[in-house]
Amino acid sequence: MTHHEPAAVTVLGLGSMGSALARAFLAAGHPTTVWNRTPDKAAPLVAAGARQAATAGDAVAASPLVVACLTGYDDTRRVLGPVAETLAGRTLVTLNSGTPAAAREFASWAGERGVRFLDGAVKDVPDAVGRPGTLLYYAGDAALFAEHVATLRVLGGDTILLGGEPDLAKFYESAVGATLLPTLVGFFAGAAAARTRGIAAADLVPYTVRWLQMIGEILPVFAAEIDARDYSAGASSVDLFLAGADWDVEFARESKVDDAWLRPLHDLVRKAAGAGHGDDSIAALTEVLGTP
Amino acid sequence: MTHHEPAAVTVLGLGSMGSALARAFLAAGHPTTVWNRTPDKAAPLVAAGARQAATAGDAVAASPLVVACLTGYDDTRRVLGPVAETLAGRTLVTLNSGTPAAAREFASWAGERGVRFLDGAVKDVPDAVGRPGTLLYYAGDAALFAEHVATLRVLGGDTILLGGEPDLAKFYESAVGATLLPTLVGFFAGAAAARTRGIAAADLVPYTVRWLQMIGEILPVFAAEIDARDYSAGASSVDLFLAGADWDVEFARESKVDDAWLRPLHDLVRKAAGAGHGDDSIAALTEVLGTP
Repeated sequence: MTHHEPAAVTVLGLGSMGSALARAFLAAGHPTTVWNRTPDKAAPLVAAGARQAATAGDAVAASPLVVACLTGYDDTRRVLGPVAETLAGRTLVTLNSGTPAAAREFASWAGERGVRFLDGAVKDVPDAVGRPGTLLYYAGDAALFAEHVATLRVLGGDTILLGGEPDLAKFYESAVGATLLPTLVGFFAGAAAARTRGIAAADLVPYTVRWLQMIGEILPVFAAEIDARDYSAGASSVDLFLAGADWDVEFARESKVDDAWLRPLHDLVRKAAGAGHGDDSIAALTEVLGTP
Repeated sequence: MTHHEPAAVTVLGLGSMGSALARAFLAAGHPTTVWNRTPDKAAPLVAAGARQAATAGDAVAASPLVVACLTGYDDTRRVLGPVAETLAGRTLVTLNSGTPAAAREFASWAGERGVRFLDGAVKDVPDAVGRPGTLLYYAGDAALFAEHVATLRVLGGDTILLGGEPDLAKFYESAVGATLLPTLVGFFAGAAAARTRGIAAADLVPYTVRWLQMIGEILPVFAAEIDARDYSAGASSVDLFLAGADWDVEFARESKVDDAWLRPLHDLVRKAAGAGHGDDSIAALTEVLGTP
C-alpha cells in the first residue's frame, strides 16, 4: 500500500459552510490555505492550522485544488476573474448555490480560461461536513472527478458524480430542493393552527417526521408511475385528494390560518381531475405541472 | 399471569383499511364480526375466519367493541343511526377521515345516544396494520381508552391517546397532514422538470428522501422557535429563502414547469420579510400564516 501525502487545498469563502469545509480538510491532514473577503473570519481556522492567504490570488496560487464556497457564481467570478491566469491549469470546485443556467455559464467562463472545473453541492448542514454519511454530489468531467475524489471525500463519505453535464448538480439541487419550501410551509401552517388550540409545535414534530418518512417510502411508487406515465394503479387517487381539499379549507378557516398558499395546490388537483385523472394516482399531477 | 380470551370485535366498512383492521384482529385471535354495505367484500375475511353479519345491527350486536372504518362521519351516522339503541352502552371507535369539527359533532351525536366513543386515525398504509411499529392515535376518554388499549394495540404496536378532547385525533390529522400535498407537489414539480432533461423521477427519489429526512431533523429547531415566538437565532433565514425564490422561478421557466402553485409560497416569504422577519428564521412564516 502506497501512502500518499494529503494534497494541498485552498478554500475561498469562510461562511459557516466554507469554514466547515476548511476544518474537514485540516482534520484530514491536508495543508489548507484559506481566504475570505473579511479576513477576521479566518482566525479560528488559522488557530486550527490553516494558512491564511492575504489575497485571493495568493490563495489560488497555494494549491492545485481550489474549493470556492462564495455567495454565488457572480460573486465567485468577481473574486476569481482578476486571478484567472493563476487559476488556469488548476482545479476549481464550486460549492455555492445557484441555478443550472448560472452553473452552465460559469462552466463556460472557466473553460475559456483553462480552468479545470467541477461544480457540486453539500447536501447537509455545515456541522455534518466531514462525516462518513454526509452526501456531496458533483457534476463535471469524470476523469477530473476521479483525480480529486479521494480529497473531496474528506468533506463527506457519500461523495458522488451525478454526470458529465456541468449544471447537473444545480439541476438536482433545484429539482430535488423543490420540496423544501412547500414542506416547511405545510408544517408552519399546522403549527399556526396548533397554536390556536394551545398545542405546541413541538408536539406535532414526531408525527410530522413520521409523515415525511411515510412520504419518502411511497415516493418510489409515484416515481415509477411518473416514469411509466401510467397512473392507473394509484391507491392515493386524485379524487381522494380532491375530497380532502374541502377539509383543508374548512380546517384553515376553523383554525384562522391563512390558506391562500393552499388554494393553488388544490387548483392543481382540480385541474388533474378535470383532465380525466380523477381515478388515477395523485402522481398524475406531474402531467398537469409539466404543461403550463 | 392471567390469560385473557381475546375480546370479540366488530369491524364495519371493509375497504382496504377496514379489511386490514379485520385481518389484524383475526390474526390476533379475536372473534371478529364484519359487515360491509356491499357484502361480497367480506368473502376473503370470512375465508380467514371472520363471521359476516347480514345487517349493521347484527354486526353491532355481536361485540362490545365496534370499529367503524366507513367513508366519513356522515356515512357512519347513516349506517349507525338506525341501530343506535343496539350501539348504546357499547364502545364505538371511528377510524375514518374528516375534520375536527365533524369529529366533535359526531362525539355529541354518540354521547346523546349513550354510545361510548373513541375517535382515532391509522397513521400508515393498510399493509402496515398489525405491525409493532405502526402508529394509531386516539382521542377521547382516558378510562375508556385504557379499557380497550390491549385490543386496539393489535392494530399497531404504537397505539397512543392524544388527549381527552374528542376531536384531537382529527385535529392532529389536519395539522400534521398539512405537509402531504405541498410536499408531493414539490416532488412532482421536480419530476416534471427532470423529465424535460431526460432524467427519471426514480433518479430523484434517493435525494428527495434525504431532503425529507433532513427537514425532519431540523423541525425540532423550528418548533422551538415557533413555541418561543423567537426567530432571531435562525440559520435558515427568510431572506435566504427570498433569494431562492427568484431561482425557483427561473428554474421553473427553464424547465417549462407550471409554477403558479409556487408563487403564493414566495408571497408568504415576501410578506414575512416585509413584516421585518428578513433576518429571522424561516419559521417566522408561522406568524404570517396565523394572521390572515
